[in-house]
Amino acid sequence: MEKTPKTVKESATVTHDIVHPGDTNSYGIAFGGYLMGLLDKAACIAARRHCTNRVTTVGIDGVRFFNPAKVGYILDIKASINRVFCSSMEIGVKVTGTPLEKTECEDICHAYITFVALDENGKPTALAPVVPETDDEKRRFEEALARREMRKRP
Amino acid sequence: MEKTPKTVKESATVTHDIVHPGDTNSYGIAFGGYLMGLLDKAACIAARRHCTNRVTTVGIDGVRFFNPAKVGYILDIKASINRVFCSSMEIGVKVTGTPLEKTECEDICHAYITFVALDENGKPTALAPVVPETDDEKRRFEEALARREMRKRP
Amino acid sequence: MEKTPKTVKESATVTHDIVHPGDTNSYGIAFGGYLMGLLDKAACIAARRHCTNRVTTVGIDGVRFFNPAKVGYILDIKASINRVFCSSMEIGVKVTGTPLEKTECEDICHAYITFVALDENGKPTALAPVVPETDDEKRRFEEALARREMRKRP
Amino acid sequence: MEKTPKTVKESATVTHDIVHPGDTNSYGIAFGGYLMGLLDKAACIAARRHCTNRVTTVGIDGVRFFNPAKVGYILDIKASINRVFCSSMEIGVKVTGTPLEKTECEDICHAYITFVALDENGKPTALAPVVPETDDEKRRFEEALARREMRKRP
Amino acid sequence: MEKTPKTVKESATVTHDIVHPGDTNSYGIAFGGYLMGLLDKAACIAARRHCTNRVTTVGIDGVRFFNPAKVGYILDIKASINRVFCSSMEIGVKVTGTPLEKTECEDICHAYITFVALDENGKPTALAPVVPETDDEKRRFEEALARREMRKRP
Amino acid sequence: MEKTPKTVKESATVTHDIVHPGDTNSYGIAFGGYLMGLLDKAACIAARRHCTNRVTTVGIDGVRFFNPAKVGYILDIKASINRVFCSSMEIGVKVTGTPLEKTECEDICHAYITFVALDENGKPTALAPVVPETDDEKRRFEEALARREMRKRP
Repeated sequence: MEKTPKTVKESATVTHDIVHPGDTNSYGIAFGGYLMGLLDKAACIAARRHCTNRVTTVGIDGVRFFNPAKVGYILDIKASINRVFCSSMEIGVKVTGTPLEKTECEDICHAYITFVALDENGKPTALAPVVPETDDEKRRFEEALARREMRKRP
Repeated sequence: MEKTPKTVKESATVTHDIVHPGDTNSYGIAFGGYLMGLLDKAACIAARRHCTNRVTTVGIDGVRFFNPAKVGYILDIKASINRVFCSSMEIGVKVTGTPLEKTECEDICHAYITFVALDENGKPTALAPVVPETDDEKRRFEEALARREMRKRP
Repeated sequence: MEKTPKTVKESATVTHDIVHPGDTNSYGIAFGGYLMGLLDKAACIAARRHCTNRVTTVGIDGVRFFNPAKVGYILDIKASINRVFCSSMEIGVKVTGTPLEKTECEDICHAYITFVALDENGKPTALAPVVPETDDEKRRFEEALARREMRKRP
Repeated sequence: MEKTPKTVKESATVTHDIVHPGDTNSYGIAFGGYLMGLLDKAACIAARRHCTNRVTTVGIDGVRFFNPAKVGYILDIKASINRVFCSSMEIGVKVTGTPLEKTECEDICHAYITFVALDENGKPTALAPVVPETDDEKRRFEEALARREMRKRP
Repeated sequence: MEKTPKTVKESATVTHDIVHPGDTNSYGIAFGGYLMGLLDKAACIAARRHCTNRVTTVGIDGVRFFNPAKVGYILDIKASINRVFCSSMEIGVKVTGTPLEKTECEDICHAYITFVALDENGKPTALAPVVPETDDEKRRFEEALARREMRKRP
Repeated sequence: MEKTPKTVKESATVTHDIVHPGDTNSYGIAFGGYLMGLLDKAACIAARRHCTNRVTTVGIDGVRFFNPAKVGYILDIKASINRVFCSSMEIGVKVTGTPLEKTECEDICHAYITFVALDENGKPTALAPVVPETDDEKRRFEEALARREMRKRP
């Protein structure tokens, strides 16, 4: 049975964090593992807003780090579903950061995270399609297919 | 010099987290200190969206815990400025939680957090007023004054 | 059946920590969430010394932050039961901090934390009364009633 | 001035961890952010064994999660430099995990992480080439070029 | 110049913690590294109560683990200075734990930790002697010398 | 039934970590509890490579700290079984550290950790003997017996 499609907006998620010294690496900037944790959580929340299944991360692609996030930066983590492929979905995540006592934000990183939905037996199960509405959403919908093709190559 | 007033909406902040086992206490539910950390960070982000000064928490009141947040709950943490009192501001924060594989959320906790804005010498400095627009915002604006009176009593 | 009253002293708890860089916020001082975790744990230990029930935090009031706790501060966290109200108890907690290479301590913060005792079915259950002995304990016992009245107001 | 080439073996790194409950997510298995932190640290150690410059993560590609790492799993994290491209290097990382009381390991995840070497002014600086010796190293050396071409596409 | 001797009692420290799931290992009991951290912090506080110098851990001996500390255990960590040897001091630390809903405690572990006091140039500097008063303190004072002899053997 | 002896090499373990600010103490160097956690994990991995039983830490001796590990140090943690005594085994662990942008390492600390193997009922159970092959392994094998004798004294 077909599931009722949902718009991208229904599951789009914006979350935030502030970089504390305990989140930093050898150089005193946000540690990659900490940032990846924020990306993974934000994408997981978007995935769980789109469906009520158990979801699990199966892949991450195209992670790019642009500027270091320093102590005190407010991070905005934006996740939205680019496209659903039967039981899997590609979620785009983008992080920007605002330094202490500033209002302009800087690009920190982005990534594409793929989640799979599982049924009660732990088997992949079909998801409701996602419906892109804006031009940006439509572009990402198209690009997600191209990336999927690329990921499937040996 | 008077600072330009800002609306409540301009700084209102919604952030999210997922409760992991490492965030839990003796009973396997979200630890109070972990939840207070989320409240403090969300309020701090709202405060920093309202002004670019250094801000510091000076008080927390009226924290109430309603339901335990269990492992896997998606937490929505909503913070908005109730009222500005010269150099300080009362920020209301409310947390709701959505269990794994559910869509209905439960009330987890709320609190009122007071921040003070500091100038470059670490002295309290006047803030732009906050302008309530909706009925809820106006009610909170009035109640914040009553709470402030109560906090000032010996 | 009435439970045997206990003195304040029987459950009063003093615990300690040292502020490490991983406990600090954007400004390099002890993070509010970290301090609240220390308060909550100290109060929980006092509550569990007063009774053997499962106890749960239901509210926190009157948190005031006085001085920043910097890296290296030894923190002394003192918790004692101010008053028992049938199945709930108000616990006062006070934190002082001693800088590196100093012996004089500074006031860091204090709070009132309310715990409820639960029976094996998770329902609130009556607690043994607490008996104040010293003048300070008696004053806190009286003040706790006034605070409780205030908390019950709409 | 050309830098003296190094073999892959000279910088190849194997590190280990044991999954503890504090490393797990909503489903009680190793959290994605925790695993990515292990990958990033292992790759960073390999990068720093190849050069003494400051190194920074600029991208992560092809992360695939195969089996969940459960509490108690011993993780083996293997990182080696696939190829150097002037000032950047692609490092392949592979994680396997051995359950409690077992000797057979399972595939957990792998990834390609790209680091850039920086000089004392924070500018990208040329690296010594890496010399593949074994058949596997030579295959990865070739594949790294193909992946780099793909990453450069718009 | 001789420093004024201090009694053992003046620096003796008792601190507490509650074992949370994030503090546990593969078997769901308190992780050794977590317990050692508690021991080290308690001993450090005792050392800093005895002197205002910078102090640093130089050795740990005789750590014994008796019973596992499970989630929910209240831990009591007791540290006191056994003996001062010019610029170093041996501190005995003992941990007991009380399970949830119990009042009887179990022995968890103990250890001897040696700290050295440093002057402003980072060189070892003479400490005030510690004066044992009770029979237990006198016995530990004697035993500390024997242990020191043993540690100095090749 | 006698278990088949294993060589030291079969279980010897080398693992690594990088010191981040969140791992440091009041003086900005690696916290003792953090280092002890690394030692315990490395020794535990060696123990589990030697046998498939549940293993538990029963003692730690001879911990010596030589040089502080600063932020950015790559730590190499080497653990190998010195000797098996029926159901227990002494494991030697040694940590060295390499500063940022250096290749020479410094001695950080070492320790002897004793693990016991448990059967499915949680009772100590006989282990396969460990066979020292190199001169260093043979020396450690002999010394481990002397240390065990010393530990058994009252």
